[in-house]
Amino acid sequence: MSQEEQIVLKKEELSAVIQELLTKVGVPAADAAITADVMADTNARGVESHGVRWLDIYLQRIQAGGVSPVTKLDVVQDKPSLLILDANNGLGQVAMHRAVEMGAKKAKENGVAIVGLRNTNHFGACAYYTEMASKMGLVSFVCTNATPLMAPWGGIDLCIGTNPLSYGFPTKGTPIILDMATTAYARGKVFVAERKGEKIPEGVALDKNGAPTTDPKAALEGIMLPASGPKGFGLSLVIDLLCGIMTGAKYGTHITPIFGTIDKSQNIGHFAFFLDIEAFVPVEEYYNNIEDNIANMKKSRLAKGYDRIYMPGEIESGIREKNLKDGISIPKPTWDVLQEWKAKLA
Amino acid sequence: MSQEEQIVLKKEELSAVIQELLTKVGVPAADAAITADVMADTNARGVESHGVRWLDIYLQRIQAGGVSPVTKLDVVQDKPSLLILDANNGLGQVAMHRAVEMGAKKAKENGVAIVGLRNTNHFGACAYYTEMASKMGLVSFVCTNATPLMAPWGGIDLCIGTNPLSYGFPTKGTPIILDMATTAYARGKVFVAERKGEKIPEGVALDKNGAPTTDPKAALEGIMLPASGPKGFGLSLVIDLLCGIMTGAKYGTHITPIFGTIDKSQNIGHFAFFLDIEAFVPVEEYYNNIEDNIANMKKSRLAKGYDRIYMPGEIESGIREKNLKDGISIPKPTWDVLQEWKAKLA
Repeated sequence: MSQEEQIVLKKEELSAVIQELLTKVGVPAADAAITADVMADTNARGVESHGVRWLDIYLQRIQAGGVSPVTKLDVVQDKPSLLILDANNGLGQVAMHRAVEMGAKKAKENGVAIVGLRNTNHFGACAYYTEMASKMGLVSFVCTNATPLMAPWGGIDLCIGTNPLSYGFPTKGTPIILDMATTAYARGKVFVAERKGEKIPEGVALDKNGAPTTDPKAALEGIMLPASGPKGFGLSLVIDLLCGIMTGAKYGTHITPIFGTIDKSQNIGHFAFFLDIEAFVPVEEYYNNIEDNIANMKKSRLAKGYDRIYMPGEIESGIREKNLKDGISIPKPTWDVLQEWKAKLA
Repeated sequence: MSQEEQIVLKKEELSAVIQELLTKVGVPAADAAITADVMADTNARGVESHGVRWLDIYLQRIQAGGVSPVTKLDVVQDKPSLLILDANNGLGQVAMHRAVEMGAKKAKENGVAIVGLRNTNHFGACAYYTEMASKMGLVSFVCTNATPLMAPWGGIDLCIGTNPLSYGFPTKGTPIILDMATTAYARGKVFVAERKGEKIPEGVALDKNGAPTTDPKAALEGIMLPASGPKGFGLSLVIDLLCGIMTGAKYGTHITPIFGTIDKSQNIGHFAFFLDIEAFVPVEEYYNNIEDNIANMKKSRLAKGYDRIYMPGEIESGIREKNLKDGISIPKPTWDVLQEWKAKLA
């Protein structure tokens, strides 16, 4: 990998910059703090593709009127284990953060809760929200639809997002946090490769004419391929149906690109469930069994080229532990954009 | 593909044979009818790997005491939107079929329902149950854990099943039914390849020492690789945690092989959710939007080598339509085993 200049910041410093810029464009202080924590935590976990890199487009969209700086959540449906929320085109991070709190409350009261959100926006990495739920002792699932960047299986036109999903399971130690896009390769990483002047792997993208490419620029103008072919497409489609059609948000080709007409709302949707462990099994039994399961997997003989078995989310958790001590590296180009915003909004 | 002799039967004929054999080993008539319909329908959909091929081991297990011929469902937990059921080591098909009925009722009353089952057994193809829910106008998700046949990512020991999942969405026409194992390749297809003397694709299995193999026999003694590497492993793991640990069933390495000690119960688990569309969005809006979404995807330009875009489950639905008219082909070796059982149980 080619090296690029990095700015190293404490999480609090990074978070403060994000908060300041969001506040300047009209985001209430408490909401700016939530959004900043989601973004800075994502960078802290080493997931640069989904972190502060996105602040630029959020600020652009807020200024252009494409995203509302105020996230007002209307309750559209409220049953013992079901909430449908309308986020009124507010920030995805704020909407989903509150949805986790509301869903968690319902799950603790009624065993389980399903939460759908409509009229919301890009919320960063799904993992933040499932980890948040896992800290509350809940098992959770969170997914979102997004700008179309994949084709249906067998096609080459943009019809569906790289729709990611995340599952979270608390353990006695590091929670199990699966967070994956339904593409073979995260599109955020294609941006990073383009910025660094690197190639992307083979078999993960097609150019706009449907020909295979390893050039990040051509891939960004083309389509991302689904993980495991029709399986990844199928998963992306069901996420689109859950988050888009079932919540009453937009879906498929109706979602306008986030980097496109920035003065128009995207109206994407999120879908989540929360499970209160004690409604399912004795809590102690759950924790003992999940630790036993992890221990059994870690005892496996290793495959060639591997020196350790990691549970989903374990690598990111280790990176965060280190980064919270040593500081978070932000690529200089990303940092420069924040500085430009700082000057512009001064 | 090498040709093998096929026996062609009407669905009713196949179903009658299955029912007869199940009844002979003590399965109540109504339960035998359910199981037979699940199995025959799976063959009708062209999913030979998950159909009547499994009857032999079910019968062996029932006779040996490893599966109870009577499926008694105890309600362990009952909340407005949550059911935990203990299937008392009965047939997976019967347990899951009733769970769909019970979950559907709860979803229609309370908007959503989550159902967990413990102490149950192999239930065939997940798709049957999500399609059943879709016929009731519900969106659904069904998954199950199973005999360990995959390793954790980075390892080579059997720790986790090829745990499949299915999502079902009703439409005005053919429902969208995604049904996928979390392996790169369904293990059922490896059995079929072995029987036919064919190779399996590269990159889908390792032998028992962790070396890549295309020999189905070596693959059956070794491990299946997950779909899209760590993503497939992660999905399989979360299914194991939902179906095993959360329902109170067995999980991971504690699940004894279905073809192993046939006199011992497996105690696997299933996990499902059911969503009543009208609790989410106006029903007409849902159906119009899902048709619009399908139409948009089908308009995509085609990728090289593809002549049509199919929605998940559409190919199987077309095969079934043809087979219900022309008859279902059962490989002769599978048919011969049924005839042997018929003689033995006469």
